[in-house]
Amino acid sequence: MRMVDIIAKKRDGEVLTDAEIRWFVNGYSNEDIPDYQASAFAMALYFQGMNEEEAASLTFAMAESGDQLDLSAIEGTKVDKHSTGGVGDKTTLILGPLVAALGIPVAKMSGRGLGHTGGTIDKLEAFKGFRTELNQNEFIRLVNENKIAVAGQSGNLTPADKKLYALRDVTATVDSIPLIASSVMSKKIAAGADAIVLDVKTGSGAFMENLEDAKSLANAMVKIGHSLNRNTMAVISNMDQPLGRFVGNALEVKEAIETLHGKGPEDLHELSVTLAAHMAVAGGKASNEKEGRQLIEEVISNGKAVEKMKQFIQSQGGDPSAVDTPEILNTAKFIKDITAHEAGSVETMHAAQIGKAAMMLGAGRATKDDEIDHAVGIKLHKKIGDEVHEAEPIATLYSNQEDTAHVEEIVRNAYTFVHGKSKKPMLIYETIYK
Amino acid sequence: MRMVDIIAKKRDGEVLTDAEIRWFVNGYSNEDIPDYQASAFAMALYFQGMNEEEAASLTFAMAESGDQLDLSAIEGTKVDKHSTGGVGDKTTLILGPLVAALGIPVAKMSGRGLGHTGGTIDKLEAFKGFRTELNQNEFIRLVNENKIAVAGQSGNLTPADKKLYALRDVTATVDSIPLIASSVMSKKIAAGADAIVLDVKTGSGAFMENLEDAKSLANAMVKIGHSLNRNTMAVISNMDQPLGRFVGNALEVKEAIETLHGKGPEDLHELSVTLAAHMAVAGGKASNEKEGRQLIEEVISNGKAVEKMKQFIQSQGGDPSAVDTPEILNTAKFIKDITAHEAGSVETMHAAQIGKAAMMLGAGRATKDDEIDHAVGIKLHKKIGDEVHEAEPIATLYSNQEDTAHVEEIVRNAYTFVHGKSKKPMLIYETIYK
Repeated sequence: MRMVDIIAKKRDGEVLTDAEIRWFVNGYSNEDIPDYQASAFAMALYFQGMNEEEAASLTFAMAESGDQLDLSAIEGTKVDKHSTGGVGDKTTLILGPLVAALGIPVAKMSGRGLGHTGGTIDKLEAFKGFRTELNQNEFIRLVNENKIAVAGQSGNLTPADKKLYALRDVTATVDSIPLIASSVMSKKIAAGADAIVLDVKTGSGAFMENLEDAKSLANAMVKIGHSLNRNTMAVISNMDQPLGRFVGNALEVKEAIETLHGKGPEDLHELSVTLAAHMAVAGGKASNEKEGRQLIEEVISNGKAVEKMKQFIQSQGGDPSAVDTPEILNTAKFIKDITAHEAGSVETMHAAQIGKAAMMLGAGRATKDDEIDHAVGIKLHKKIGDEVHEAEPIATLYSNQEDTAHVEEIVRNAYTFVHGKSKKPMLIYETIYK
Repeated sequence: MRMVDIIAKKRDGEVLTDAEIRWFVNGYSNEDIPDYQASAFAMALYFQGMNEEEAASLTFAMAESGDQLDLSAIEGTKVDKHSTGGVGDKTTLILGPLVAALGIPVAKMSGRGLGHTGGTIDKLEAFKGFRTELNQNEFIRLVNENKIAVAGQSGNLTPADKKLYALRDVTATVDSIPLIASSVMSKKIAAGADAIVLDVKTGSGAFMENLEDAKSLANAMVKIGHSLNRNTMAVISNMDQPLGRFVGNALEVKEAIETLHGKGPEDLHELSVTLAAHMAVAGGKASNEKEGRQLIEEVISNGKAVEKMKQFIQSQGGDPSAVDTPEILNTAKFIKDITAHEAGSVETMHAAQIGKAAMMLGAGRATKDDEIDHAVGIKLHKKIGDEVHEAEPIATLYSNQEDTAHVEEIVRNAYTFVHGKSKKPMLIYETIYK
């Protein structure tokens, strides 16, 4: 095979064979195929797309390009959840205990990552003593004992995807649905998922800003999952405003705990219960979403979800007292309200700008070596559809720096107001099964 | 500027500014922009194309990327001709003396190149003693004295084009009309042309196999020329069969000389007169094609074209005796006829296969370091539309190797026959002015 012929074939809109796609992934991983051919290929893919089989081949080849987790020693169906990312998205912290409380094994590999806040691992470190460096045996033992463990990503997962993504980033070929879908799914498969529940976000704070693109991505990922025999489904949810009321690390943990106590904000509660219900179905604990919701609401109301959270934190060396008294997670030095300049109601919010503001307070990393400040973040008193009186606080900054004028400005500008009433946005747009 | 933004802009079908295109060409030449961004950009261009202004900017930036010939010391309008290449195309050898005989300066830089035969320089070396290493002063002096000189390409012309072409060749981005057009025109402009006559070939032996593509390329080149203030026009000519009856180096020189004597084959004569007539118009010696044709036919019939050829060969150290007795150029050791297996007439010829056969005899270079055998080649007794009797020769191989069975097979298979009559193909499809 010659790479130039494979590029030409895709350029001309033809369908590549599994052998051709594997040959590319292997050759690119081995550095037999140079970046300049891979980038031309990525651009041809941008224009011509990939069908279901091609995307599945690419996903599988990338999953196979590095280490693959063997979770066969864990009993039950390993259901993984993936969110395409958004501001204030702390559902992973909530879903783990919820579905583990139903007896579904949650064997989660998680990262730190760049962005407006840290990753799940960073957030969990808000619990004193919590450790995520688990070896394979300990990880599996904990999941079998407690049904839940979260480990920091170790080993060399999907190196072909990492290499290709870095190239796409500098060649304007990131925005290709089959390439995004393959990238996400290859990581889930390498991480040992038997079934996958996807939360595809759309809106001003999401990677997929418009609904049609989000649907296409969700469909592509669900098809790849089924092609590779992983029961996969997707929920398309709103990210026109941050999820819940808190953005930050410890602050999001606090809100997650409140949600496990049944006292979370409406949108976060609803999305968590919905995703958990789908995970319950995928994990074989419920026969449909409705039954799954009942089971999940039950573990919230009877305290089992909270108990599971405590057990999980304690098993990994963390101090679980914050699960009972989440207020202790408020440790920022400076707390400053941002008040409304006029009365009305919130018409739009620019979620990405709120994320940017949190990052400027120190909640997230711009580069890999930045340190995260767990204490800082933003509380949003007002969200879309809420009425606002003049001089009423719309948001509160939790900061360890006294001067936050520039951040206040960004948060204030992320809101637009309208006279009279405004409408609350829809939370879940669509559910996509096979 | 960031290259990733320029790639994204073109990917999204937007029009690039002159500044952006120059920035790319300079950055790519300087190695500030890596190959992997240039190849993704080339693929985006493949899909989105370029408008007239963008192609002109690219052409000019590539022409400026290296040395540029200063022909201002040559009196008159320097008219250059360019052919997109075909089998048996020896028109450059004919056009030079024809238009020089009218007093139009022919200051030709020519290459050796890869392909079924050598380039113009190789062919001219069939004249004993002919030398093409002329310095700038000698080159200009010869053109001013004789109105014609041909020099081997020296200096560093259009390095950006060379680098980009090499990259396109391995990334399946060669077949892009604006990129091909810019590549050709940048070389002509760097070589100092005031006006350009293009011979765009189409058919089985041409780079542009179908007529529509040939028209698009011709239009693109003519537009670029006019955008850059070079009077440019194009003729679209047939390359479904080799031009003339000979393919080879010395054999093509022989046929060119015969054409200057007025004894060339009909198609070669006609195309040469047509192109020369357009050059006469572009050079200000005729007011229209018809008048140009009359002038050209005149210099053929009154012997001035032949005299000009002799003067040209002699001025560059060559032995001009072959101009009077072209038969002396037949020096191959083995001459072998290929005869028809059945009677009928020639319906199609695969020109590229005839070219391949000539190359196998040693007439062309597959790699830069191959040596050319000037003596070898093929005579085509029969071409499309010709009647053939059983056992009549259809072609003759001129070879320096005794066993040519494999080459005979290729030549024979390049012909298809039909019972009864077949039609001669059209020679010139279209003429494209501004």
